[in-house]
Amino acid sequence: MAEDRKPRRDAVVNRERILVAAREAFRGSGISVDMRAVAAAAEVGIGTLYRHFPTREDLVRAVTGTDLADLAGATLPDELSAIDGLREFFTTTLAQLTGNQAMIDVLAAGPPTDADLERCLAHLTEIGLEAVRRSGADRTLAPDVTARDIAYQLLGLIRIAQLTPDPDALRHQMDLALRGLAAR
Amino acid sequence: MAEDRKPRRDAVVNRERILVAAREAFRGSGISVDMRAVAAAAEVGIGTLYRHFPTREDLVRAVTGTDLADLAGATLPDELSAIDGLREFFTTTLAQLTGNQAMIDVLAAGPPTDADLERCLAHLTEIGLEAVRRSGADRTLAPDVTARDIAYQLLGLIRIAQLTPDPDALRHQMDLALRGLAAR
Repeated sequence: MAEDRKPRRDAVVNRERILVAAREAFRGSGISVDMRAVAAAAEVGIGTLYRHFPTREDLVRAVTGTDLADLAGATLPDELSAIDGLREFFTTTLAQLTGNQAMIDVLAAGPPTDADLERCLAHLTEIGLEAVRRSGADRTLAPDVTARDIAYQLLGLIRIAQLTPDPDALRHQMDLALRGLAAR
Repeated sequence: MAEDRKPRRDAVVNRERILVAAREAFRGSGISVDMRAVAAAAEVGIGTLYRHFPTREDLVRAVTGTDLADLAGATLPDELSAIDGLREFFTTTLAQLTGNQAMIDVLAAGPPTDADLERCLAHLTEIGLEAVRRSGADRTLAPDVTARDIAYQLLGLIRIAQLTPDPDALRHQMDLALRGLAAR
């Protein structure tokens, strides 16, 4: 019986090695990295890689799923005003993404097609709703700002993060976006 | 001699048919449309398509090249202030992109890899420089706004255009971006 389990255990180990190698490769080079390089780094054959993850998308999904879940766990700090809470939330989110090219690629890519990403975007909208609700009391956001505006502004910033590796440039873009959202 | 030219003339006709069909398909469905559907619409075999355009990228490049050149021809209207000129330029650019899913995909995709796109982005920066220069006299932009900020804000908006098909939502996002760029 123990013998029977060996191949399955090997498969689990291989899958884990591929995920670790892919996470490393994706972080540095983004999701368009050569699959053969991932297999080589994981010390498995390319056939083994494709047996576990038939398409690049499957592998990307497996690797970024946890990061997306982390991102969907961020909140608007309780003690802050709507605008300061958003500044904090944007800063934290963009910092989490810095150097994680795979996540930037996934979030900056076309319309979402998988459940993890959908959930993450839904969470962004919830954060936006909370900020708009809070601004009902503290009036720190412009009166016409909606939850969707907030989510879109952050996605716009993520697109900019994809274009510039310079954290100062990105922070400046964030300041501009927040000025656009803030009450005058 | 005339006989010799026939195959070449057929090739030119086929290439043109493929470009017309691809432009149509890309506009509606974006650049990830099935290559076989493009070949079918062009009434050529898939082999002929690939002989002319070995990769999807080659075809995308051929189709969007003209649109990118058009976009790189837009200017900041002379008689307007820096901020009003930018509003006009952003509005025109986003209107040109509306319904042209291929262009939105190309501009919202990762870092540019081809010359047409590079030229288009360089042009955006020139528009930004002109706006910043003009604001030196009319002070309608916030003093810390750079040409790069302006280009990035527009690219952020193009990313949002990719996410929402709603022109009102996009216009509202544009208003927010311009508020961020405007002097207080």
